[in-house]
Amino acid sequence: MTDRDFYRHWTTDNVRFSDQDGTGHVNNVAVAAYVETGRLAFMREMVRLDRDQGESGILAKLSIDYRRESYWPGTVDIGSRLVRVGGKSFTVASGLFRDGDCIATSESVLVYLKDRKSAPISGALRERLEKLLAE
Amino acid sequence: MTDRDFYRHWTTDNVRFSDQDGTGHVNNVAVAAYVETGRLAFMREMVRLDRDQGESGILAKLSIDYRRESYWPGTVDIGSRLVRVGGKSFTVASGLFRDGDCIATSESVLVYLKDRKSAPISGALRERLEKLLAE
Amino acid sequence: MTDRDFYRHWTTDNVRFSDQDGTGHVNNVAVAAYVETGRLAFMREMVRLDRDQGESGILAKLSIDYRRESYWPGTVDIGSRLVRVGGKSFTVASGLFRDGDCIATSESVLVYLKDRKSAPISGALRERLEKLLAE
Amino acid sequence: MTDRDFYRHWTTDNVRFSDQDGTGHVNNVAVAAYVETGRLAFMREMVRLDRDQGESGILAKLSIDYRRESYWPGTVDIGSRLVRVGGKSFTVASGLFRDGDCIATSESVLVYLKDRKSAPISGALRERLEKLLAE
Repeated sequence: MTDRDFYRHWTTDNVRFSDQDGTGHVNNVAVAAYVETGRLAFMREMVRLDRDQGESGILAKLSIDYRRESYWPGTVDIGSRLVRVGGKSFTVASGLFRDGDCIATSESVLVYLKDRKSAPISGALRERLEKLLAE
Repeated sequence: MTDRDFYRHWTTDNVRFSDQDGTGHVNNVAVAAYVETGRLAFMREMVRLDRDQGESGILAKLSIDYRRESYWPGTVDIGSRLVRVGGKSFTVASGLFRDGDCIATSESVLVYLKDRKSAPISGALRERLEKLLAE
Repeated sequence: MTDRDFYRHWTTDNVRFSDQDGTGHVNNVAVAAYVETGRLAFMREMVRLDRDQGESGILAKLSIDYRRESYWPGTVDIGSRLVRVGGKSFTVASGLFRDGDCIATSESVLVYLKDRKSAPISGALRERLEKLLAE
Repeated sequence: MTDRDFYRHWTTDNVRFSDQDGTGHVNNVAVAAYVETGRLAFMREMVRLDRDQGESGILAKLSIDYRRESYWPGTVDIGSRLVRVGGKSFTVASGLFRDGDCIATSESVLVYLKDRKSAPISGALRERLEKLLAE
């Protein structure tokens, strides 16, 4: 997960001056925001839940491994890949890279909701997720 | 506005570690969040717009004078006072204090909305605002 | 970990209006900030690293289980407890509560640094940590 | 200031999901972060204070006029222009644009510091600022 080649989808976030904290490095909370930027771009562009059909997802668990300190100014590249599909949830892995270095890796467990209630993943969505998993 | 006695309403916000930036002081953006904490408490408790009647307010202009650096950990006391009432807007002044020192003063111009459109301030709301202004 | 009685140390953070996101609930990133508020208060008051002796800690891993949605306005109580002490790191568990409900639980793995390098935990610090673990 | 042609320097920030608040629009506090992104890029690239000579600047006053609501996802273009140079301070104007629309304008008053104390602006810095002002 610290290797760029692991990921299938990419987006970029901007490091803000206010993302740093009193240590002069990017704060761990800002890293959670970068992970969200990547995860939501992956959701919109690859997972493509059908809002018109009442489909949505909710973040149930987030874990982040902080691997290197990062700094302002600059940008962070965020790689994403689907790594697990369960009965009612799926897991997106994220890799954050800065100038070639992996600064953090993360996993987000998303629970699938149909009309705002947890529901089994089936039909076109399951097919799409299985395909993303195999890529 | 740097004098605590100027203000009529008080609330408190918590300085977070992530509110600091690379300089080791509280970042100017976090100060805008403290101002919002004070302004919204003042709105809810003193101005009391009637959501059921379609009343709301929107922030049209914010100005902040930064007077002293502030630090984590600690809390910020935020004083509020209504300082102007116009035909379709009103202005809330804020004073931010830390251990007796004024760290910032601010003014927020709020435009009054009725059913999401700018509208003249009248009736019970105008009476309440005139009273707050006189206090 | 969803039971208040599990925790040994308590602090409080303020839910800010800007902590909410477009869903109208507190955003997952803000929850990471509440966890940090609790963890750092626990570090200062209970773990008490000796900065004069070159002791510090760095967050290596953060995991958060989101259990309930939360809302502005209000406050979050954050409980902390030391749950593991390894050779060179230790783990702090956090429980976030809102009006009696557990909204999230979290674990933070902190690597011990001596003069900015990873080092074995020994002496007075190990004694203090073992004692916190037994409580 | 709502016209793109007014500005002389441009940079871009990314709208984050967590920049939105419970209204479903970008929160006013996030707009202050975008303004900072633009102002600091302008400072680094155009004003170019000489840190080695003990030069720095501190934000003394920030004002923001909110002109349109903005949304996630997307980016914000931030235009900057020097609009005033005083004896010991200078003012940077910012214009924030989204898909051609001006969402906010802002002014930042920066006090010039020499060895961390307010000092008259002179020599190479004054020349550079006068030139930026004339452009």
